[in-house]
Amino acid sequence: MTNHIISIRDYTRRDIDYLLERAGEFDTRTYDRHALEEKLLALLFFEPSTRTRMSFETAMARLGGKSISVDSVEASSIVKGETLADTIRVVSGYADAIVLRHPKEGAARLASEFATVPVINAGDGAGQHPSQTLLDLYTIRQSMPIDGINVGMLGDLRYGRTAHSLAYALSLYGATIHTIAPGGLELPANILHELRERGMEVIQHDDVSDIVAELDVLYVTRIQRERFPDSASYYNVASSYRITPDLLEDVQEHLMVLHPLPRAGEIDSGVDGLPYARYFEQSRNGVPVRMALLHEVMK
Amino acid sequence: MTNHIISIRDYTRRDIDYLLERAGEFDTRTYDRHALEEKLLALLFFEPSTRTRMSFETAMARLGGKSISVDSVEASSIVKGETLADTIRVVSGYADAIVLRHPKEGAARLASEFATVPVINAGDGAGQHPSQTLLDLYTIRQSMPIDGINVGMLGDLRYGRTAHSLAYALSLYGATIHTIAPGGLELPANILHELRERGMEVIQHDDVSDIVAELDVLYVTRIQRERFPDSASYYNVASSYRITPDLLEDVQEHLMVLHPLPRAGEIDSGVDGLPYARYFEQSRNGVPVRMALLHEVMK
Amino acid sequence: MTNHIISIRDYTRRDIDYLLERAGEFDTRTYDRHALEEKLLALLFFEPSTRTRMSFETAMARLGGKSISVDSVEASSIVKGETLADTIRVVSGYADAIVLRHPKEGAARLASEFATVPVINAGDGAGQHPSQTLLDLYTIRQSMPIDGINVGMLGDLRYGRTAHSLAYALSLYGATIHTIAPGGLELPANILHELRERGMEVIQHDDVSDIVAELDVLYVTRIQRERFPDSASYYNVASSYRITPDLLEDVQEHLMVLHPLPRAGEIDSGVDGLPYARYFEQSRNGVPVRMALLHEVMK
Repeated sequence: MTNHIISIRDYTRRDIDYLLERAGEFDTRTYDRHALEEKLLALLFFEPSTRTRMSFETAMARLGGKSISVDSVEASSIVKGETLADTIRVVSGYADAIVLRHPKEGAARLASEFATVPVINAGDGAGQHPSQTLLDLYTIRQSMPIDGINVGMLGDLRYGRTAHSLAYALSLYGATIHTIAPGGLELPANILHELRERGMEVIQHDDVSDIVAELDVLYVTRIQRERFPDSASYYNVASSYRITPDLLEDVQEHLMVLHPLPRAGEIDSGVDGLPYARYFEQSRNGVPVRMALLHEVMK
Repeated sequence: MTNHIISIRDYTRRDIDYLLERAGEFDTRTYDRHALEEKLLALLFFEPSTRTRMSFETAMARLGGKSISVDSVEASSIVKGETLADTIRVVSGYADAIVLRHPKEGAARLASEFATVPVINAGDGAGQHPSQTLLDLYTIRQSMPIDGINVGMLGDLRYGRTAHSLAYALSLYGATIHTIAPGGLELPANILHELRERGMEVIQHDDVSDIVAELDVLYVTRIQRERFPDSASYYNVASSYRITPDLLEDVQEHLMVLHPLPRAGEIDSGVDGLPYARYFEQSRNGVPVRMALLHEVMK
Repeated sequence: MTNHIISIRDYTRRDIDYLLERAGEFDTRTYDRHALEEKLLALLFFEPSTRTRMSFETAMARLGGKSISVDSVEASSIVKGETLADTIRVVSGYADAIVLRHPKEGAARLASEFATVPVINAGDGAGQHPSQTLLDLYTIRQSMPIDGINVGMLGDLRYGRTAHSLAYALSLYGATIHTIAPGGLELPANILHELRERGMEVIQHDDVSDIVAELDVLYVTRIQRERFPDSASYYNVASSYRITPDLLEDVQEHLMVLHPLPRAGEIDSGVDGLPYARYFEQSRNGVPVRMALLHEVMK
């Protein structure tokens, strides 16, 4: 493992298992609350992602560390003023690690080449967002071994990068993927091809109700209105890809419904009270997972 | 007392006295500066209120705790993405308490229903802002017992929610209210009615000079330009509701002039040097009062 | 020395030497990391300056202290609401010191008159930015005694306030200034006059290559596009005031190329790898210098 955390693809299954175990240690009340006490984290968010920022700041605070952050409004003035390489070199002179969110794919990798401190990728365009994938895996592993599970992926599988990264990571665990996506928003052919080359079984379904009873995990992603030509076609699609209590009537007892959040109607609020609803727990798991990452790069 | 702090109306006089006494302890140099050392406060400000945010962050820092905050610009992107209920559930997974400022009346109460950590209302539309009322009371109590005092309330008493909350709280102490408000900006009839039902004497005056000599406290509120059809009528009204050194020539020695700040000309800067001017001290008192609230909900 | 830090002109050479020595102590790993543990710094930035803000927050964190900050977006709502004097009095009630960045010259001096805690000027319009000058001097002093050195100043010397302040400070050390500026962006006559009155030798050059071989320090400043009538004249000037590896072929071995950053093409990235390039180190030196200032005013 390098000292930067850029893409889930840089990790072996063994690396991932190690990080998930470390996250588990930080999820107890017995970890060292002063572990990063004299450390300073810089959060550079060149596009808004309030939840991710708060989650990293929380993780840093829980380890006794401090954070300095640049939000997207301030960042836009930086962008005008200098290259990302210069910004990263300057901020390397302040902080002990940098969490970077940037609209351009490859920005985190570029940043890691100029940084003199570790860089953690918190999303770069259509690229990777490794801490999201790790918290997805962590949430699954809290309930069941990941090996060989059946994971439904529902929603926008074309643009949804969290689904792509998760699918890639699940391929390391011999999981089977069941995709349910609206026409035009299916998993891209190259990703499908790569997953199959890695020996993963990927099965496409038209309707989630065809397969939901066999799933161990149902991973729901957001369907964005702007992908559709008009409101009518959006609402039409959105309503057929909506998870309701009815749909979950005959599922396996241990089914987990996950969602990277925010949700915009993909999951009916009636589902929130069911034992399958694990998305708020999933969001909360971002904290121990990010604690593990921060500890790993700054310890 | 619940673990949430939503409205001053949820408190008895005994509750309020207890909180004011606790605030007094935090106003000394001898309190435990590590009391909230491992605690994290989330500040969600869906509308700008920089002073309130800074005051809460200061209170948290003085108790050894840390804060993560979302300002109104970031918050507006949250609003687009998800319901307040979801935001609150997500942030409950990060922080040990939430301070919420929101433009819609009732938002804080709603938030408290979804939060798994305590919620403190820092203003919700025309609704309550209980920490402001507590710091107003705290400031008065530093100089005199609140029981039975004469309080002048000057300015916009129609929209000024700080005045409404304070009037309500003062009714628990047998105070008399003297209102001096421009036409159209008088205390709303329903509030007047309620205060009188609670046994409070509320006396309306046309001119502050008629009553100023008898007051123990003069509470000045901001008259906002946007309440008037044109600049001329605003300036006309504003100039007759302006506190000047001349006006304070024959007042009681212990008179306190208070203002929730910011002021926009309601108090002449010539008043700042007089012993009656207590509004900057009042602002500073926000810190021990908010320390008491934060300690109360997270201790 | 007063307890406020407003202008480099308030300091004698002895004051400056003292602060630079203190900064050197904070640049080791042996300083007291809890020195400002119970202190709170307020950063009021009425115009954006992300690097300066991060640098001060870093300095505060490295000393164990906490910061609360108001960025330029929030600050603009403060500006509408109240006078700077009121804001400063309110914030004095929260924090132990105030770092102020403001677009109007003289704002920091005004603030210091109303503050009940120390004010540090982080830039006020065309006025002073003393911590920048101190970090410039600190960087030079790391490599050589400042006395009697030859300093080239290249770029916009008319509007570049960092160059003005540095020139003033260098006059205390018997340095010689070599100016190389485009027509219309020369050092203003009154500053030139003052420096010469203080006994400083200031020599104007047309081309940096005429003098670069004799320099100990080459201080490059940004040439802003908006100073020129059109893009063509900007690019024309910018290209002749650009530092390239070629230009540095026959310089003294100890030459330092400095730049207050951000740069926008004034220094070719090919220079970054040369031993003369010291601008990122210079930026990093902002931290120990600001630690010294913060410690000085709050200790």
